[in-house]
Amino acid sequence: MTGGQKRPKYRRIADALRAQIDAGEYGPGDRLPGENPLAAEHGVAAMTARQALNALKNEGLVEARKGAGFYVRSFKPIRRRSIARLSREHWGSGATIFSADDARELTVEASLLGEVTAPEPIARVLDLGEAGSSFARTRRFIVEDRPVLLSTSYMPYDLVAGTPVAEVETGPGGTYARLADLGHAPVHFREEVRVRAPSAEDAARLRLSADTPVIKIVRTAYEATGRAIEVNEMTLDSLAYVLEYDFDA
Amino acid sequence: MTGGQKRPKYRRIADALRAQIDAGEYGPGDRLPGENPLAAEHGVAAMTARQALNALKNEGLVEARKGAGFYVRSFKPIRRRSIARLSREHWGSGATIFSADDARELTVEASLLGEVTAPEPIARVLDLGEAGSSFARTRRFIVEDRPVLLSTSYMPYDLVAGTPVAEVETGPGGTYARLADLGHAPVHFREEVRVRAPSAEDAARLRLSADTPVIKIVRTAYEATGRAIEVNEMTLDSLAYVLEYDFDA
Repeated sequence: MTGGQKRPKYRRIADALRAQIDAGEYGPGDRLPGENPLAAEHGVAAMTARQALNALKNEGLVEARKGAGFYVRSFKPIRRRSIARLSREHWGSGATIFSADDARELTVEASLLGEVTAPEPIARVLDLGEAGSSFARTRRFIVEDRPVLLSTSYMPYDLVAGTPVAEVETGPGGTYARLADLGHAPVHFREEVRVRAPSAEDAARLRLSADTPVIKIVRTAYEATGRAIEVNEMTLDSLAYVLEYDFDA
Repeated sequence: MTGGQKRPKYRRIADALRAQIDAGEYGPGDRLPGENPLAAEHGVAAMTARQALNALKNEGLVEARKGAGFYVRSFKPIRRRSIARLSREHWGSGATIFSADDARELTVEASLLGEVTAPEPIARVLDLGEAGSSFARTRRFIVEDRPVLLSTSYMPYDLVAGTPVAEVETGPGGTYARLADLGHAPVHFREEVRVRAPSAEDAARLRLSADTPVIKIVRTAYEATGRAIEVNEMTLDSLAYVLEYDFDA
């Protein structure tokens, strides 16, 4: 079905299993064959079969349960449509940013932090001056009872204090639509993507083990003048997401 | 200098150190103050100072050396200008894709795999049919003696066999410029970004410890007809890269 001279045996076995999973022969939560039956089926050493199962585990496609073998992951990663979700047609139409993603039954825990001193690098980008005074809002996103994303948004305090942007509920289209109402529509975004070990705080809020890496996305929103009007620090459970970026040449 | 009521002590100490590193007070390879002097300086417990140092380690900004404390990482992460690097103005002008990034003294080890059976999911995207016959090329990118990226590019065999795309040296602008010469210019790209534990193979070729995650980027290039003409599977040392995506609203 796949393979080719350049492809090691364990990869070809992993490809075969992946194809069976894609085809639905093994559904979410199903147990995969153990290394011995798998080894027998493909006429390889048990060790090679184990390599194949571990390869799928590394891909996040299956999870190992202590002493119980390998199971197809039951959480389908969220496809984050990174660019479409931020298009003006999208939030300008009153849609929420994350409704562009394919996430299921999403719960958002939001809280206003109000006026806070922004972390130094963010204060610099937002040009907050000595006081570094920003308006901040923090959110935790939960999908299928699994916390998947932490987000903290910082904006210049003077820009948004006392405006609808500073309300608990920002209404249709959210923060970006309200900033547009104020004449500060975001026209350009930059996302910086890094991978880190989770801090103790991240691990607790996302319910991650210390060895599950997180994706850190720092997004800066710019208005037409080129001024940065928002910095959003996001922390994602790296196994819960596929980041998709679609763009023209 | 930073902080605010919502920010835990260890974070404020980490912010202060980060600012000193950003300001060049601690340069690449410099040793940071130990947890005891740091704790004394900020009037906190040594444990809190250690949390701050570990936070910077989690950010990849410093590295711990056994028994010798924490040092400012001397490898400056590569900023990958993910979208600009793939613009037609860029490769169309004869530039290499990676010259858009800020990488230093780059070495590329390239080898042709020639005709190979593509992995099943890629064969499907490239619509290779039963045989799944593709033309593949693999590369390893080394920056400052550190392997940072593995890349394998698959294209439909019939599309490129016997053309300059299939040469060892693809010339100015590389594969995409040659595909354009053939009337198959890529006009749209999709990058899918995932984070994984490194496979044994990845770890060996990138010289990573098993607990350093890798970034997997699968990029699909589409021509004007909407047909997928290339799939490039990339594996990045997650600590060596910052992925930057710049786009309009």
